[in-house]
Amino acid sequence: MATAPSSTGNKPAADIETAVRQRGAEILGLMDAADSPSLFSRKGFYGALMDWSLRDEHFKTQLFRFVDVLPMLNTSSEISRHLKEYLDNDRVNLSPALRLALKASAGASWLFGSGVKAQVTGLARQFMLGNDEKEIVATLRKLHEQDIAFTVDVLGEAVVSEAEADEYSTRYLKLMELIATETPNWLPACKSNLSARGPVPPLNLSVKISALYSQIHPTDPETAIEKLSARLRRILRRAKELGAFINFDMESYALKNLTLRLFKAMFDEPEFASAPAGGLAVQAYLKDCEADLRDLMAWARERKRRITVRLVKGAYWDYETVMAQQRHWPVPVFEHKAETDANFEKLSAVLLENDDVVDAAFGTHNVRSIAHALAQAERLGVPQRNFEFQMLCGMADSIKTSLLQMDCRVREYCPVGELLPGMAYLVRRLLENTSNEGFLANKFAKGASPEALLRNPREPGGTTSTSSQTTSEKSGTRWNASLPAFRNEPPTDFTIAAEREKLSAALKELRRKLGRRQPLIINHKSVTTEAWLPSLNPADQKEIVGLAAQATITEAESALASARAAQPAWARWPVEQRAGILERTATLLRRDKAALAALEVLEAGKNWTEADGDVAEAIDFCNFYAAVMRELDRPQRTQLVAGESNFQHWWPRGVGIVIAPWNFPLAILAGMTAAAVVAGNAVIMKPSDQTPLIAGRWMTLLMEAGLPAGVVNLLTGPGGSVGAHLVAHPQIDFIAFTGSKEIGVKIWETAGRTLPGQANLKKVVCEMGGKNCLIVDGDADLDEAVMGAIHSAFGYQGQKCSALSRLVVLADNYDRFLERLVAAANSMPVGPAEAPGNLVGPVINRDAQRRILALIETGKTEAKLAWQGRVPADPDACYVPPTIFTEVPATSRLFREEIFGPVLSVSKAKSFGEALALANDSEFALTGGLYSRSPVNLERAKAEFVCGNLYLNRPITGAMVGRQPFGGFKMSGGGTKAGGREYLQNFLSPRAITENLLRRGFAPADEM
Amino acid sequence: MATAPSSTGNKPAADIETAVRQRGAEILGLMDAADSPSLFSRKGFYGALMDWSLRDEHFKTQLFRFVDVLPMLNTSSEISRHLKEYLDNDRVNLSPALRLALKASAGASWLFGSGVKAQVTGLARQFMLGNDEKEIVATLRKLHEQDIAFTVDVLGEAVVSEAEADEYSTRYLKLMELIATETPNWLPACKSNLSARGPVPPLNLSVKISALYSQIHPTDPETAIEKLSARLRRILRRAKELGAFINFDMESYALKNLTLRLFKAMFDEPEFASAPAGGLAVQAYLKDCEADLRDLMAWARERKRRITVRLVKGAYWDYETVMAQQRHWPVPVFEHKAETDANFEKLSAVLLENDDVVDAAFGTHNVRSIAHALAQAERLGVPQRNFEFQMLCGMADSIKTSLLQMDCRVREYCPVGELLPGMAYLVRRLLENTSNEGFLANKFAKGASPEALLRNPREPGGTTSTSSQTTSEKSGTRWNASLPAFRNEPPTDFTIAAEREKLSAALKELRRKLGRRQPLIINHKSVTTEAWLPSLNPADQKEIVGLAAQATITEAESALASARAAQPAWARWPVEQRAGILERTATLLRRDKAALAALEVLEAGKNWTEADGDVAEAIDFCNFYAAVMRELDRPQRTQLVAGESNFQHWWPRGVGIVIAPWNFPLAILAGMTAAAVVAGNAVIMKPSDQTPLIAGRWMTLLMEAGLPAGVVNLLTGPGGSVGAHLVAHPQIDFIAFTGSKEIGVKIWETAGRTLPGQANLKKVVCEMGGKNCLIVDGDADLDEAVMGAIHSAFGYQGQKCSALSRLVVLADNYDRFLERLVAAANSMPVGPAEAPGNLVGPVINRDAQRRILALIETGKTEAKLAWQGRVPADPDACYVPPTIFTEVPATSRLFREEIFGPVLSVSKAKSFGEALALANDSEFALTGGLYSRSPVNLERAKAEFVCGNLYLNRPITGAMVGRQPFGGFKMSGGGTKAGGREYLQNFLSPRAITENLLRRGFAPADEM
Repeated sequence: MATAPSSTGNKPAADIETAVRQRGAEILGLMDAADSPSLFSRKGFYGALMDWSLRDEHFKTQLFRFVDVLPMLNTSSEISRHLKEYLDNDRVNLSPALRLALKASAGASWLFGSGVKAQVTGLARQFMLGNDEKEIVATLRKLHEQDIAFTVDVLGEAVVSEAEADEYSTRYLKLMELIATETPNWLPACKSNLSARGPVPPLNLSVKISALYSQIHPTDPETAIEKLSARLRRILRRAKELGAFINFDMESYALKNLTLRLFKAMFDEPEFASAPAGGLAVQAYLKDCEADLRDLMAWARERKRRITVRLVKGAYWDYETVMAQQRHWPVPVFEHKAETDANFEKLSAVLLENDDVVDAAFGTHNVRSIAHALAQAERLGVPQRNFEFQMLCGMADSIKTSLLQMDCRVREYCPVGELLPGMAYLVRRLLENTSNEGFLANKFAKGASPEALLRNPREPGGTTSTSSQTTSEKSGTRWNASLPAFRNEPPTDFTIAAEREKLSAALKELRRKLGRRQPLIINHKSVTTEAWLPSLNPADQKEIVGLAAQATITEAESALASARAAQPAWARWPVEQRAGILERTATLLRRDKAALAALEVLEAGKNWTEADGDVAEAIDFCNFYAAVMRELDRPQRTQLVAGESNFQHWWPRGVGIVIAPWNFPLAILAGMTAAAVVAGNAVIMKPSDQTPLIAGRWMTLLMEAGLPAGVVNLLTGPGGSVGAHLVAHPQIDFIAFTGSKEIGVKIWETAGRTLPGQANLKKVVCEMGGKNCLIVDGDADLDEAVMGAIHSAFGYQGQKCSALSRLVVLADNYDRFLERLVAAANSMPVGPAEAPGNLVGPVINRDAQRRILALIETGKTEAKLAWQGRVPADPDACYVPPTIFTEVPATSRLFREEIFGPVLSVSKAKSFGEALALANDSEFALTGGLYSRSPVNLERAKAEFVCGNLYLNRPITGAMVGRQPFGGFKMSGGGTKAGGREYLQNFLSPRAITENLLRRGFAPADEM
Repeated sequence: MATAPSSTGNKPAADIETAVRQRGAEILGLMDAADSPSLFSRKGFYGALMDWSLRDEHFKTQLFRFVDVLPMLNTSSEISRHLKEYLDNDRVNLSPALRLALKASAGASWLFGSGVKAQVTGLARQFMLGNDEKEIVATLRKLHEQDIAFTVDVLGEAVVSEAEADEYSTRYLKLMELIATETPNWLPACKSNLSARGPVPPLNLSVKISALYSQIHPTDPETAIEKLSARLRRILRRAKELGAFINFDMESYALKNLTLRLFKAMFDEPEFASAPAGGLAVQAYLKDCEADLRDLMAWARERKRRITVRLVKGAYWDYETVMAQQRHWPVPVFEHKAETDANFEKLSAVLLENDDVVDAAFGTHNVRSIAHALAQAERLGVPQRNFEFQMLCGMADSIKTSLLQMDCRVREYCPVGELLPGMAYLVRRLLENTSNEGFLANKFAKGASPEALLRNPREPGGTTSTSSQTTSEKSGTRWNASLPAFRNEPPTDFTIAAEREKLSAALKELRRKLGRRQPLIINHKSVTTEAWLPSLNPADQKEIVGLAAQATITEAESALASARAAQPAWARWPVEQRAGILERTATLLRRDKAALAALEVLEAGKNWTEADGDVAEAIDFCNFYAAVMRELDRPQRTQLVAGESNFQHWWPRGVGIVIAPWNFPLAILAGMTAAAVVAGNAVIMKPSDQTPLIAGRWMTLLMEAGLPAGVVNLLTGPGGSVGAHLVAHPQIDFIAFTGSKEIGVKIWETAGRTLPGQANLKKVVCEMGGKNCLIVDGDADLDEAVMGAIHSAFGYQGQKCSALSRLVVLADNYDRFLERLVAAANSMPVGPAEAPGNLVGPVINRDAQRRILALIETGKTEAKLAWQGRVPADPDACYVPPTIFTEVPATSRLFREEIFGPVLSVSKAKSFGEALALANDSEFALTGGLYSRSPVNLERAKAEFVCGNLYLNRPITGAMVGRQPFGGFKMSGGGTKAGGREYLQNFLSPRAITENLLRRGFAPADEM
């Protein structure tokens, strides 16, 4: 799909270039006759700010972050505090001019008071229309009078609930009504609405798909299409009545395929097959763009339906790049700005070549791109008024007027909305204006020459700036030069239909094989037992996923003997080969990813994404610990000493037992086992009773990978008997446990007792529960905070040790936040994990269901039930309705006990200090989080938030191996970090070797 | 003392240079007329070996190590195995010629059989005389006939016992007798014995001081002088009778001052004031040399006694450099060979200028140095036959004959002895011949030009080779680039009289203040108690060193409250400041070094060196943990991720108890406390009942250094009550314990229990005992092995967890080794630690004495008592006679139980595999050692010897902080390493912080 732009058409390139430069020079000439845009004036304080933003990246970040948070600040003291935190401190480098200005203005209310908000509001008003109907009408009319057409868009917060999506679609409708009542009176017609093919609708509305449905999930595009269609139909129907034009805006790459599909689906519906007029934006920075465009044109041609295509470059480059890199997905956008510019030109030609079916709209502020489109049109003989140019409100006004003078059609993109949600839009505009690669900054701020501004992007150094847009140097996987690269397994991209089908097929395949018996595996041999325990589907307790053998003390002793016999030889395997076994296992896990995920869906009740993530994490553990062990295997010189060599290295501890939970049935079991085994130990795995089958699959893959017999033994069975027996056994050297505090503390105690004949003091890796808290600060980005809280609290029904359990919200935003939170919670799809798209499913089993329901009942007596979701009325499933409590006292069980279910307690805090104190008031210290845009509060949380994993401005679950070493202290664990560099040391003993190199007084160079 | 050579006399340098070059050219001309020495012939296999040794340093090391071990190898298969291990493997780089030769000779018995030994013996015979009387006489007579004078020296093993010292002095006497009966018959007199002042004694004997007393100890030169004088008197007396000349050879720098003092003392004795003729060697590579020489001449002039001074360059450069660097002492030798050469020239002039009192002997094979002496003599008008040149037997024969032709006096240094002890001497000669800086290699092997060979060493690039002799790049203290430098505290150099006097004075001072009361220190306040426990001198149980307050539960609770109150604020201190407190404490410890050591001598019964070492180790712990904590304080990036910052850092654990033993009363207490405290924790120190006073001093110094109140609290008292109470206390977060297995296991168990309200799972740092084994391989260097075993087993009466307890000796050498071991043990000075020089003192107290004596009695029933030392008959001292058992069964208590006293069990092993199995047959795994010269066995021990600290070819005690991270596993401990990089992690919990850096889709560069 990623076809690089290569040709601009059939006319010789040189001729086109000449024409482009002629047209470009014409536009630039007309622009120079006009005024420079005020934004780039260096006069005044804001001029100085913009100027310095162009020169200092850190300052720009700080400034724009300040602008971003500003609308949330309601008092002058809050504004003044944030201004100081962002801009007036040692880490910020200020220009002499700015320093002077800041000094001069110290205490001046216009800067350090609410005045600054007015200033920024004024700035924002350059780029968007307020919500006042009169103002909207007046502004649009003014455009009309200037012969500039418009398209209106509704700005708003991110839609986190269905209530908000409803509200959004209503606002679209209202805006249409408002404009529709006015435009008929505006005569004569705006020239820009007069195409060579006739007049186009003056009422032009741009619609954002993400605003119309709150639960778009990659695994479930069908539901999204259904829900979005419903809301869109109302808009299209009214548009048809009003003769309006509807444009589908294009947003993030994750929504692209969905948007394309939706566009075609809607306009395929008989009702809309001919009207309203419709269009779609496509993004030239996407490597997919040409293929998508050609597909779209073929669709239109087939239906003999003209569509409008707005070709833009794309506004989410940072986001797309970062998200893809974080997940190790292919980056969907071109790396270099020049490639995007070149692709824009290529696709401009494609659009014009298809003038028979497409009304082209070129959305760009780049004179070169505009001139190129004009030159191509000329070459192809497409009349200039067949297409239009679109530019943003408040941007590049002199280009607009120049184009009008050249008799081109110009449309302005006018966002309408409140300042607060509009701030994101403002920041994007400021970024565009200050981008070192942007045309506007080069033209107006840097005064680039016409030659540079019009340079062909295909030429080497073909952008007007030499700086590279790449962030590849920001990304990577090595933590320092001494460790080999480790790369996290990418999560499956379920926006790809084939990936969804794979998992779907795996589920079907699994259903055909339900009820399989999982024997014990001792010394690589299957061992069956008298007793068998069924493993049930949490969503259907009548469905037996399989049966697990139930070991007795006899088999436990036999497994231990097998491990003891195998360990010494295994410890002598070269680390390279031990690591190789794990890496082969990782490859097998990848091969069987869909099958394993399917099994997790049915056996553990994980939804598709969670199940896929668990398999990926298991792969990561294998590869990460292999990489770390390779590093640890290199003896480390302790000191460089003349005549003596001194090294430390690591030895395996011996034989251990791995006791794993069901909630990450593959990853945690695999992680503890992989760590112990790659370090040269042998283990007995005691998986959870709830998920023996996935443990069996893991065991099988280890065997397939070539692990020698006895190194890992699978012992399913009752923890209370065989688990406890082994934990206490004098021949066990270590215990790796992840589970509840109750069991953990008991294991810690048992392991403390040293029996006669016991070789080693027992080492216990003990990871227990959490009662994790997330603080939402008064200046938090609520869009992010709501979604972060929802996912952290209710993902996998809250059955994660990292899950959010206590939410502490600063009073300032409490009401607004809670309202949105409840609405968002209320929109969560609840149902069996098997059905893709369900965020919340059943809890693991009947016991858990009963226990959590009882705790909710207790909660009702302790606190205020703020919300409780509805669950499918299925008596065979273990549903617990997701629940939110407010006014939760710090003394209540709700506040103090780990619930391990979909129950969230919300508390209100008057100050950030109080919030931190509440957060830290727990016997646990596992995960914690803070949504805040106060640099000082973020730093304070870093210093004072008592937890093993602190997450800032993001959800508090989903730690990745190697990236977020996971584990806590207090009653959350012994201070070990799964997926951390030091983790393997728990399974090893250090050993120092000193060799005197002097012989007969002769000291050779150290023999390394 | 280190005066750099600067001038060569009063004659203008240019004139001297001209003269030097003339004389040099003359000698070189005469040499060229003679044959090249056979050693440098490139013909044959040995020629190829020498040639390649000059080119490949690693090969040279391997070859010379092989030569070194060769005499110990008694069978062809042993020789063939070692040859293969040293020279025929992948790590050795061979020249094509050598590779061919080795290939061609494969299986040839002359190489891979005992033939090689004959070859090497032949080589050795070039440099030394065998023990056969006829051969000696014949060789010396031949020299006589060539008009070459001689001096004879007795080669032998290192003297490890008084029996060996007696034997040595007898050999000197016998050699004198042998030669004295022959020389009168040799007429006419050898020309080289005819000085311008008349004939000199034909019988000339060189005596090595180290051969005449086995217990030379820096702290006690008085005893050494006394013992050495006794043996020397017999030699000097007989020399006087025989008219012989006695030269004192100069050996290692540590013996230099003693040798000078001894020389003067002996010849000051009225009996020897006029005869025999005597002389002394001085080493020009020593920075001290000129001062020593001038002092010596002043002494002679004062006594109007001519002495002979043999000026040599010095043969122990590697050793001196390495030893000084290992101890961080000033390096006593010049760094560059040219500096030594220049100093030799300077001192040649000094000698000649003092011709009135000194008979100069120039010991050198360097033609430039010889020519320089001749030129200086000419300048000063000193007759050429007033002085002599000395050269080694088998070296530089053409120089000798050339000098004779020039009518100079030439004396050859002839070592007499067995091949085996002579091998060290051979290796030194081979090294000299192949040194890249040596005159001989440059002249004969590299064919350097006369200009280069005669170049003035003061000129830039003034040596004949450009390679530097420095090993400074071999030495250093950083383990890698990421950690700040840490430098071990140098041990006190007791060869310096002032240092001995300091400790002596401190002991006197301490005696004046005995009986002081040490209160508890809680929250920096002194707390007295009802009960007081006296701390007694192990060497005098009637002497109360002081009294210690005895805490009850009340004070324990109070100390805990104080620590809990102080910890949070302390944890917030910047690490830089916490580290600063420790570093200040280290400075104070250094200031009070002598006083602290004195207290250890009296309170713990440590001898001077051990006491001094313990204080140095305490200083090291403070500085090392400060350095490591600084490093740990820097958050560590876990991965480089686009749009997200991920760091891990470390948090203090809280409040702990430090339970320390008495055997390293300062270092271990300080180490555990420093680690806990620098990491931000607060602690209660519970020192041993045996050594509360030293603990009190440590506490006082912490306070003086500015540690805030409550961070460290001193709680002396009964471990069984207050210690146990705190270990079990729910408010204790960690325990740092060093002591016995019994207590350690109990603490591990108690700490395993988690009480209600307890914040954290208790972390235990648990270092327990050992039953440490040393293997002496069949090819071990017995000189080293005997001394290593003695020091490891009996140092501080075996009261170290690292002490040697089980010795396993390969059968090949068992008898010889045991004989020397027992003799060496029998020579150990035993007595109160206060008297310097005593290796063995009393054990810590009556209980220990009784317990160990009882174990010895049991031992007598289990094994064979091979030796038992005598101890002073002092009923007030807690002496246990040092004891050696042999034929110790592996099932015996002797073999299995930790004794913690001066008892050594010796076992015989038939094979190295059996030896390793015996070594590993223990419930402990702390230290272990191997003396071997088999590369394969050394590697095998590295891979298979089950212990936390493995020492190869050196003693197994004396781990240094940072250099040998100390600690073991099995029942020796939990696998922690005191003085290791990871140690601090025991007192910290890791914490990961993840910050989403994307805001509004805008990703700034990561802000770190």
